[in-house]
Amino acid sequence: MSQDLHGYYIQDISVGMSASYAKTVTDADIMLFAGISGDDNPVHINEEFAAETPFKGRIAHGMLSAAFVSTVLGTRLPGPGCIYVSQKLKFKAPVRSGDTVTATATVTDVNVEKRRVTLDTVCTVKGKTVLEGEATLMVDSRP
Amino acid sequence: MSQDLHGYYIQDISVGMSASYAKTVTDADIMLFAGISGDDNPVHINEEFAAETPFKGRIAHGMLSAAFVSTVLGTRLPGPGCIYVSQKLKFKAPVRSGDTVTATATVTDVNVEKRRVTLDTVCTVKGKTVLEGEATLMVDSRP
Amino acid sequence: MSQDLHGYYIQDISVGMSASYAKTVTDADIMLFAGISGDDNPVHINEEFAAETPFKGRIAHGMLSAAFVSTVLGTRLPGPGCIYVSQKLKFKAPVRSGDTVTATATVTDVNVEKRRVTLDTVCTVKGKTVLEGEATLMVDSRP
Amino acid sequence: MSQDLHGYYIQDISVGMSASYAKTVTDADIMLFAGISGDDNPVHINEEFAAETPFKGRIAHGMLSAAFVSTVLGTRLPGPGCIYVSQKLKFKAPVRSGDTVTATATVTDVNVEKRRVTLDTVCTVKGKTVLEGEATLMVDSRP
Repeated sequence: MSQDLHGYYIQDISVGMSASYAKTVTDADIMLFAGISGDDNPVHINEEFAAETPFKGRIAHGMLSAAFVSTVLGTRLPGPGCIYVSQKLKFKAPVRSGDTVTATATVTDVNVEKRRVTLDTVCTVKGKTVLEGEATLMVDSRP
Repeated sequence: MSQDLHGYYIQDISVGMSASYAKTVTDADIMLFAGISGDDNPVHINEEFAAETPFKGRIAHGMLSAAFVSTVLGTRLPGPGCIYVSQKLKFKAPVRSGDTVTATATVTDVNVEKRRVTLDTVCTVKGKTVLEGEATLMVDSRP
Repeated sequence: MSQDLHGYYIQDISVGMSASYAKTVTDADIMLFAGISGDDNPVHINEEFAAETPFKGRIAHGMLSAAFVSTVLGTRLPGPGCIYVSQKLKFKAPVRSGDTVTATATVTDVNVEKRRVTLDTVCTVKGKTVLEGEATLMVDSRP
Repeated sequence: MSQDLHGYYIQDISVGMSASYAKTVTDADIMLFAGISGDDNPVHINEEFAAETPFKGRIAHGMLSAAFVSTVLGTRLPGPGCIYVSQKLKFKAPVRSGDTVTATATVTDVNVEKRRVTLDTVCTVKGKTVLEGEATLMVDSRP
């Protein structure tokens, strides 16, 4: 079974390949994320506090968008079997309940010998970048 | 009220200050994280698949540990009111259900003029580093 | 429809009537409760911290058992349509993940004129009392 | 590590000390609370039924506000390490989705010998009391 579930092997990956994952963020996601992370920063859970911040209202956790990046990498490209080595994240704009976040990963470098892949990772809401960064993963060699 | 809930102001932060958050990761956390992120990579949710990977069993999402880093930053140091600018993450070792993860952030640089704080961020399990990185945040000036 | 969904009316309730609700508490319940309440006390979410307390391990939130009491009152006896006036709670013993909690409410007083009902409320795990108290509710008069 | 995470010791608590926690209640909180408690009273989950009650619409579970009281006690004052002994609750007004609830606990009595602390506990929405009561906790003596 494992073979069926396995994602791309290093030999199958080339620069320019791309994959996306998109999800609408709801209040339920924000409250659940607060629960499992422990991050109950009032900017996420207190509308009165958040209204007085530069965000003018509650926003989602930045790491929730980062999680969508991880979802693309771990489930689509390179997909199951890859090992997360590093991730750089730049938070560019807030995400709010009701926003649909699209996370896209695009291969920028492949090192077959070291089995390393580098991807440009970006999250957008209605075409506006909310998160950008770069991921490095280790990918299995074709068996 | 906001004032009560607000975290540190840029003038209150100095190099060397440190704060931690610690949580035991359970299967419930992993399944809920899979649910809200959409990251249902079999290495997280399929014991049979995971057993055949180098991890020899299911592991937690790396971004769950990253979320604990965000928790320390957003709720303790600098605390509520800060704005997440960027985060670098290096995944060093897997976290499994039952592991207690301690996330620690330590201030390494403060720029009062630009209201920027840089922190060294690390997650450990029984003293072993599982995640390391660096965070940059924008912090309010004392009103 | 409302009529069908309505619980007991004050004229239908007599001293000695009793109802129960029982649920097995899981880690998922504890993590979700932490999320919606914001109560991430380490005795609930940090096994290493909790192991050093008198409880010798993680315990569920006391208010989760109190919620089961509210469930009996609001869904069974008196049931939908009643208004919660007051509740006294005495926490007698901890509840842990895996415990099945049975919440039971028994009518101890009925005042038809004032439309008030008083109930003895108790939660048990394997017959041992973990929570006890008393509830007062206002109940509709038969239309 | 426990020492870092521990809240106030009995010797550190004095009459008049106060702490708060505030959170905006969303539909997600109400639905999740219904899910983990089993309290699916139609006044919480059925808008049509709720519209015909004196509340004129869906309301949050009273025990959700009680949970915020528990959050203040367990995470801020007295904080981690305390043991919940008892809680009295009087439900004064309904809380609706969108309301920001502020839970405040104020110390009214300290018994160092018996390691008991009594606190006045109140929840408000826009300054109006929705829940009031009294909590008793057992607190560790300074090691």
